[in-house]
Amino acid sequence: MKRVAIGIDIGGTNTVLGVVDENGDVLVKDSISTPNHGDVGKYVASLSESINELIDSVHKLNADAEVMGIGIGAPNGNYYKGTIEQAANLAFKGVVPLVDLLKENFPHLKALALTNDANAAAMGEMIYGGAKGMKNFVMITLGTGLGSGIVVNGDLVYGHDGFAGEVGHTTVIPHGRVCGCGGAGHLEAYCSAPGIKRTVFELLTKYNGGSELTKYSFDELDSKKVFEAAEKGDKVALEAFEITGELLGQGLGDTVCHLSPEAIFLFGGPTAAGDLIFKPTKESMERHVLPIFRNKVEILPSKLKAGSAAIVGASALVWKELEKE
Amino acid sequence: MKRVAIGIDIGGTNTVLGVVDENGDVLVKDSISTPNHGDVGKYVASLSESINELIDSVHKLNADAEVMGIGIGAPNGNYYKGTIEQAANLAFKGVVPLVDLLKENFPHLKALALTNDANAAAMGEMIYGGAKGMKNFVMITLGTGLGSGIVVNGDLVYGHDGFAGEVGHTTVIPHGRVCGCGGAGHLEAYCSAPGIKRTVFELLTKYNGGSELTKYSFDELDSKKVFEAAEKGDKVALEAFEITGELLGQGLGDTVCHLSPEAIFLFGGPTAAGDLIFKPTKESMERHVLPIFRNKVEILPSKLKAGSAAIVGASALVWKELEKE
Repeated sequence: MKRVAIGIDIGGTNTVLGVVDENGDVLVKDSISTPNHGDVGKYVASLSESINELIDSVHKLNADAEVMGIGIGAPNGNYYKGTIEQAANLAFKGVVPLVDLLKENFPHLKALALTNDANAAAMGEMIYGGAKGMKNFVMITLGTGLGSGIVVNGDLVYGHDGFAGEVGHTTVIPHGRVCGCGGAGHLEAYCSAPGIKRTVFELLTKYNGGSELTKYSFDELDSKKVFEAAEKGDKVALEAFEITGELLGQGLGDTVCHLSPEAIFLFGGPTAAGDLIFKPTKESMERHVLPIFRNKVEILPSKLKAGSAAIVGASALVWKELEKE
Repeated sequence: MKRVAIGIDIGGTNTVLGVVDENGDVLVKDSISTPNHGDVGKYVASLSESINELIDSVHKLNADAEVMGIGIGAPNGNYYKGTIEQAANLAFKGVVPLVDLLKENFPHLKALALTNDANAAAMGEMIYGGAKGMKNFVMITLGTGLGSGIVVNGDLVYGHDGFAGEVGHTTVIPHGRVCGCGGAGHLEAYCSAPGIKRTVFELLTKYNGGSELTKYSFDELDSKKVFEAAEKGDKVALEAFEITGELLGQGLGDTVCHLSPEAIFLFGGPTAAGDLIFKPTKESMERHVLPIFRNKVEILPSKLKAGSAAIVGASALVWKELEKE
């Protein structure tokens, strides 16, 4: 018997799903549109159809495969209630009891769990990735925003209401940049793909240009272009990464003072910049923390594969649930 | 049979200890000098003597009393190892294995545990105080510094190395005031008794006086005098509390984004200022957090009694240890 789990990642445009084995390998995968209408019933029906097709496919590959459960990563996912709540980027309004709805269609599965995408990534890192065997670590996902999943004593921290782990919305610059959430000076407004772009434009303003990045409009520039310019020695691009690292290190220093984790994993597009981002982040974090924490906390690149991390992370929830039994 | 626990609080000058019952009432107490020499053996001997005297006293009060264990709160206390490590305010250098040393003298006790003072206060709040029944909360102790104890899923968060929960050393103002730890802009440098005083002097500088507090030297002024002036309507004193609350709310907002606790308890001298500190803190915290956390997290005064909180908090560790068995 080969035990497998289904991982589902619900994004604003697409829902991707796949069958993952206990090594974190994706055996089969599929993708459906995340609807732009608000009809949850219809969505659950098409999602369930896709799940059933995946189960059929995996049984064709391996007749012995046993599907143990479904794990879901979704924006504003609430683990305690199995719901998606007021997700700004999804068409569903209010509270969607997705776990209960799927349970009706898959009553025989042993585990069915949902959490937000960054928590799912943290689970993926713990079950399949670089955090294997770690009991206290933090996962930071850098992309359009800055997501985080916090693990304490081997368990995800969900907090009182199921929504803990929003490190992206801690304040690093009082009265600073406007954040997507409406707040001011949040870490995510500086340390994310759009945050790096904003820093470049701040520097172009400061120096009145002086960079090959002057040729791009605000719409055109992205963190990949900043990275390419930095590799060629562009001073503004290099300084943008320095500033990003300085502020990320400050924010992660706060995380260390709260939690004293063994390691912090960074995942997502901007981490491709390697030392350009890791080095100033580490230096800044060490400078910001209490001496007792210095040189104890590693900042490591995630070992999850970029292409499949979302599905794989979501599937990890299933193994974690089964552990609890 | 009446179960009791011994609580010990090790301060820079004195070590106070007492026998506490399951309601958090202190039955008998004692105090010895925390030595200014570094001789640990001598200290453990006199501490053990005092413990034995307390045990005798409590047995005279109640022949049925059963001493279940010893809980210790100490600066830089490490729960995992039962040690005090590099505590700046104590004469002992290096690592003091206090739990092991006391175990030799009290081998029959069921529980012997040590943690830092703020963690002990958090345990006290959970076992005897306002956090009874809460699984996720944070304790903040305001005094010479800003200490904190974090509870997640009913357990103190110790982190990877036993030193988690140093919210006082998160950064609220980048490149801000020098902190006692050598860092810059830490929460403790603003939101503590000396922090409030520093804010007053900052405001006296800004306004070139304009307050009844101009008559005090830096050595003379304390947070109690600031409170008394604020009660009389002194504008600088009032603004100092506003600023303290603004920054404390920013810092606690970061804590909420990490942990989403049910409540945050404030303990210590400056909390006597009541609404002057609680109101701006709450307003600022709500403004700084992600909307999903708004109006969910209470900021409450600790229910521990100021005079006995340290002993009572330390004793609570014993009941927590017994729960784990």
